[in-house]
Parts: sequence; C-alpha cells; structure tokens
Amino acid sequence: MLSGVVFRSSRREKRETPFIRPRVTPTQLAKVDFTELVPEPNELLGQAAVLQLESFENLAKAVAGAPTLASKEGLSAAAGVALKKHHALIAELRRDGVEPVEVMAPFTPELDRFREKIAGAEWSELLLGIHVTSGMLDDFFARLAAGLPHDRGARVRDILSEAGAAEVLSAELQRAIAEDPGLADRLALWGRSLVGDTLLVARNALRAAEPEGRRDEDVEPVFTELIAEHTRRMDALGLTA
Amino acid sequence: MLSGVVFRSSRREKRETPFIRPRVTPTQLAKVDFTELVPEPNELLGQAAVLQLESFENLAKAVAGAPTLASKEGLSAAAGVALKKHHALIAELRRDGVEPVEVMAPFTPELDRFREKIAGAEWSELLLGIHVTSGMLDDFFARLAAGLPHDRGARVRDILSEAGAAEVLSAELQRAIAEDPGLADRLALWGRSLVGDTLLVARNALRAAEPEGRRDEDVEPVFTELIAEHTRRMDALGLTA
Repeated sequence: MLSGVVFRSSRREKRETPFIRPRVTPTQLAKVDFTELVPEPNELLGQAAVLQLESFENLAKAVAGAPTLASKEGLSAAAGVALKKHHALIAELRRDGVEPVEVMAPFTPELDRFREKIAGAEWSELLLGIHVTSGMLDDFFARLAAGLPHDRGARVRDILSEAGAAEVLSAELQRAIAEDPGLADRLALWGRSLVGDTLLVARNALRAAEPEGRRDEDVEPVFTELIAEHTRRMDALGLTA
Repeated sequence: MLSGVVFRSSRREKRETPFIRPRVTPTQLAKVDFTELVPEPNELLGQAAVLQLESFENLAKAVAGAPTLASKEGLSAAAGVALKKHHALIAELRRDGVEPVEVMAPFTPELDRFREKIAGAEWSELLLGIHVTSGMLDDFFARLAAGLPHDRGARVRDILSEAGAAEVLSAELQRAIAEDPGLADRLALWGRSLVGDTLLVARNALRAAEPEGRRDEDVEPVFTELIAEHTRRMDALGLTA
C-alpha cells in the first residue's frame, strides 16, 4: 500500500484516495491523452538532461562512499551511463540549434534541491533514493518522449532506455539489507517518503502544456503505472512500498 | 623555481639540490634505464586504474561544486574520460585473467589519502590539484607503460594517452584567476605544495622493482622531465611554479 503519497489533485473527491496497485496490467492502460501533455520538446529534453546530470552527481557520490572497490566498479559504470545520457541529450539539443545551458537553467534549482533531498542521510538511503527516483522518472520521461516528433522521439527514447543503474543499485541494496537486519524497515519508510516528491517532479515537467485540471485527469493512469513499477521495484528488494 | 620540493634521495649530496627547470629539452634526455624500473605489469595497471578512479572521484566533486551548467558540462565530460580509462584498465587486467580488485586494493589507502589531500580547501584548489597531479602522473604512467610487453604496452599507452581533463581544467582555472585577483598567488603556492607528494606517488609506483639507490639514480631524468612539464603547465596559467 502506498499510503502517505499525497498527490495534489484539482478534483476534491480524488484527494482522499491513496494510490493503489492497479488491477490492470500496464499495457491495458490507455495512453491516448497522455502524449498531449508532453511539454515543448526542448523543455522536455532540458529537464531530462538535468535529471541525468543529477543522477550522475548522486551516483558519483555513491561511488565515493562505496565500501569496496567492487561496489565502486559497478556504481561508477552506472554513473558513466547517466553521464552518457546527459551528454547525448545535450547533443540532441545542440542538433536542433538550441543552447543546452539556456533550456536546462530554469529547471536546475528545483532539481538540485530534489537531488539533495534524495541523497538521504546514509549510503544505503542515497542508493535507494537514486533507485526509486530514477526508476520512476526515467520511465516517465521515456513515455513523454513518445509525444515528440517521430525521429526525435525515437532518438530520445533510445537514449533514455539504455539500462542504467537499476541492476547495480538493486544488488548493492540487497547486500546492504542482508547485512543489517534493521535496515529494511528504515529503507521501506525512506522509499515511501520519496514517491510524493518524485511524482511532483514528474507533474511539474508538464507544467507549461496544459491547464491544471485537464492535466491531472490525463496523467493519472500514467502515475498509476509508475507507482505499480515502484511497488515491483520495492518488492524486489523485499521492502514494503 | 621549485624550492619546497623534497625528494628523498639515497645520495646525501643530492638532498640539498632543488629540482630546477632542465636546460635540455625532454627528447634529449636518455630513457635507457627507466624502462627497467617498470613494476610488475599487473601492479602497474592496478595503480594506474586506482589513480584514474581517484581522478574520476575528484572530477565528479568538481562537477558537483561547479558554479555554472557550462562548467559542469566540460568537467563532467572530463570525468567521463577518467572513468573510461579506469574501466579500460580494469578490462585489461581481466583480459590477463587477473581480478582487478585484488591488484588495486593494496594501492587504494595511499591513493585515497592522496586524493583527499589534492582536493584542497576550495573549488579552484580542487581543480588545480587534479590538473597538477593528473598531468604529472598520467605522463609518468604512460612512460612506465613503455616498459610493458609490446602489445600490452601499446594498448595501455593508448588508454592513458586519450586527452582528458587538462584542457577544461586549464580553461576553468584561467577564468577563476581572471575573476579573483588574489587567487593567482594562493594557487601558485598550492601548486608548488603538490609537486613533492605527486613525485612520491610516482616513486612509490616503482617500489617493488629496484633497490633504492639504483632507482633514484635512474628515475631522476624522468622526474626532471615531469617537473619541466609541470612548470610549463603552471606557466600556461600565469602561475609561478
């Protein structure tokens, strides 16, 4: 159960309903309206580029704090993938004649704060923070990319869909949880506390495109899917979502 | 002048002689004995791999502290190159059937301390710390690689010779120095203080190969070249070496 997730809805009656695991499989969910919510292409790419940079910074921090060289190897490879995605998105912006710094700058303060928040208080919280938020947001931005013009959309999905940190983070977290009996409970709470902020980042990504009410209605099926994936991700760690 | 550089020599009369800018160009210096000082190949690769990982961690720290997105872009690309070198050296070890963690582990404590030391007290010191020490050590290890068996030596030189952080660090430092009139003097002192520690790391890389006295004698021409390059690097920043 995902009690504790507060998602600001413009429709009052929805406010009391916590997100629950969907009874339908993701593929059954309609995507008709969602692609209409896609923000202006360069804004989408700018935000996605900043998010990859923030992931890189957090993964580099995880490398620096890693207890063994073996952990450093896996985490640094994952940091390299986030970096590659960041630079590929920047290159995609330049390809369109856009100066990346200009489109990224407006999103940087909010996403800097988000990065600091998800870094947590200890190494395992940092790892879960990256795992939970990148898991949800990489998926979200890949879905948004479906609304980009054909060629560009395909290129951006290719960039974002490269397997990143999930596997190594999951393995490191499983090891940490196995070694410390009290950790699972703390991490379960921590993981739950990240979902609301992450959905807010996702929702804000759509800001410029649609009026509030319309947006919430259209985006809900997608958020339901994101949360279902989050639950599966937590389950895989043996953590209650 | 490089007063302040203390290099432990086994020959007493050498101890009072500071390193000076050489009167000969690097190509005139003989390399005959130096390749005999090359440590056991896997030890060499292990140390070089740890040094690239330390460079990556420091460059990632520089990214995190960078004042602008433009600075982050250049520095993160440089961090990516250090990471690529680290993983290529690890792959080179695996290719030889060696577990990289085992050969890297003995060098990690000393090089961790070295990384922390060169990180300095502020962002510009961190940048100069990476610039000065990577400049000298990348060059040093590329020279050592010349003493590896033919194919392997060529592969390792290729890995290490890829242009890394020098250009972006130099540009960022020039900008920082131009903006802060007092910075040049502080950085000149800081740069000078790094040389002795860096030469010690280089010298320790040879530990297993040769008796002390022989080693110091053979390695001196190489150190003279490293210091000449260091002086040119500092000159390019308008800093006294």
